[in-house]
Amino acid sequence: MRFAKGHGTGNDFVIVPDVDGVLELTPELVAALCDRHFGIGGDGVLRVVRTAAVEGAAASQVDAAEWFMDYRNGDGSVAEMCGNGVRVFAQYLIEEGLAAGPEVTVATRAGLRSVRAEADGQFTVDMGPVAVLGEGAVEAGRQLLAGLVISVGNPHVACVVDQPLAGIDLGSPRVLGPAALAAGINVEVARVTGEREIEMRVHERGSGLTLSCGTGAVAATVAASWSAGERPGEWRPSPWRVHVPGGTLAVRLGARASLLTGPAEIVARGQLENGWLARQRSAAGVGSG
Amino acid sequence: MRFAKGHGTGNDFVIVPDVDGVLELTPELVAALCDRHFGIGGDGVLRVVRTAAVEGAAASQVDAAEWFMDYRNGDGSVAEMCGNGVRVFAQYLIEEGLAAGPEVTVATRAGLRSVRAEADGQFTVDMGPVAVLGEGAVEAGRQLLAGLVISVGNPHVACVVDQPLAGIDLGSPRVLGPAALAAGINVEVARVTGEREIEMRVHERGSGLTLSCGTGAVAATVAASWSAGERPGEWRPSPWRVHVPGGTLAVRLGARASLLTGPAEIVARGQLENGWLARQRSAAGVGSG
Repeated sequence: MRFAKGHGTGNDFVIVPDVDGVLELTPELVAALCDRHFGIGGDGVLRVVRTAAVEGAAASQVDAAEWFMDYRNGDGSVAEMCGNGVRVFAQYLIEEGLAAGPEVTVATRAGLRSVRAEADGQFTVDMGPVAVLGEGAVEAGRQLLAGLVISVGNPHVACVVDQPLAGIDLGSPRVLGPAALAAGINVEVARVTGEREIEMRVHERGSGLTLSCGTGAVAATVAASWSAGERPGEWRPSPWRVHVPGGTLAVRLGARASLLTGPAEIVARGQLENGWLARQRSAAGVGSG
Repeated sequence: MRFAKGHGTGNDFVIVPDVDGVLELTPELVAALCDRHFGIGGDGVLRVVRTAAVEGAAASQVDAAEWFMDYRNGDGSVAEMCGNGVRVFAQYLIEEGLAAGPEVTVATRAGLRSVRAEADGQFTVDMGPVAVLGEGAVEAGRQLLAGLVISVGNPHVACVVDQPLAGIDLGSPRVLGPAALAAGINVEVARVTGEREIEMRVHERGSGLTLSCGTGAVAATVAASWSAGERPGEWRPSPWRVHVPGGTLAVRLGARASLLTGPAEIVARGQLENGWLARQRSAAGVGSG
């Protein structure tokens, strides 16, 4: 079984090519692959599968996108989209000769995503529409932070602050508001560091503090733009630079879609040992065929 | 550049074959390989090199051991020996056909180590002589724990306790005693869970809490044996079972040498991307030739 490892601003993935969709990728195998000591290690798995081979894929998806990004979280659960992952996915397709580039349309559980390989080696992703849902608040350690509730496909509370981010306890932030909202929400804190430039830290629900979050970078930019007095109808096309712990991203806010630009790097390629695979499958009670 | 990834009871390594000793393995490259998000990820690197190709290798080492284990910590620093790493190293040599087995003598910076592949797939390592140096004490959170200072090539304070190990704060234990001793010492807490059976947790100086530590398992066994009234001259050859967070090891104490038995698993093999390697070398200011 082949694999590759790659990352985008430190958000890292085990890439598993399975072009014909024949692999039995159980939650247990995903968790074993992502285990950083007993497996390869990663924040998640990107399975590379032909859209036509995905059960239940819409005909419109099959027509528009040859490849489907089957994204799984490190715990084995299914996820819809990942702004860092889809750049790594496109980089892998191009390096493997599975897509010609520079424009690659990728089918995801959140719909089609268009990714463009830029001349400087970065990748730009269409992150879809963004919506400001209202005001929110977060208890971070002993501080109460005011923020905006923002949907980037998934929900965020993004708080613009005027203090060093390192001093904010983001270990287990508590989102104030309706319980339904607080359950699956991501929290960002951001500080303006220059003209259309911010730094941010993110707590991803289910993963904790991470080095980077693509949708979080978009949400933090929306909040920073709001703080500067720009409302969604007034967004200008020039980019914001967003410094995350794992690197730097660029975000362009737009009425129909926002664009996320950042690096994507393939680190290595290889083969999983048959013995290791057989032991994972036997531990999970799955026949190895 | 080829690599493999393997682990022994969750202590994991990036294995780098360099049989002729031509690789420029800088501290920066080691740290980049061991980085769990931007590289492959591991607690350390095991470079596989012919002993004859190692600068300054003693003729006696060259004669006794075809292969030298060049062990590096995850931060790039040089280390002498690793009881979990040397099992993985031997497993790799045998799987690659570089050693016939079942007995493999490995040259290390701590001297020659003999490793035996057991019939059940485990590996037994000669850990060399062990010495009890005296009594010691550790401040762990708010608890003061009494222990023994033990040398297994490297120094340990091993504390046998009669309470659940999970309740002991091993985040930053403070070793009481001469500063020179406290500087580079590892701390184990162990509890007897059955007849010649213990569980242990370990804080490795420089790495913090780890899933396993081979020399620590030996030190904890010495302390448990001492608590049971056995003194070094009275050690019996039957094994102790040692449960560590990453699995189970067996330790046989002996007057001349103690033996450590445990699993070793190769997870995957592959190639690092040339682009990734070039970027690491350029970041570190090393010419890529």
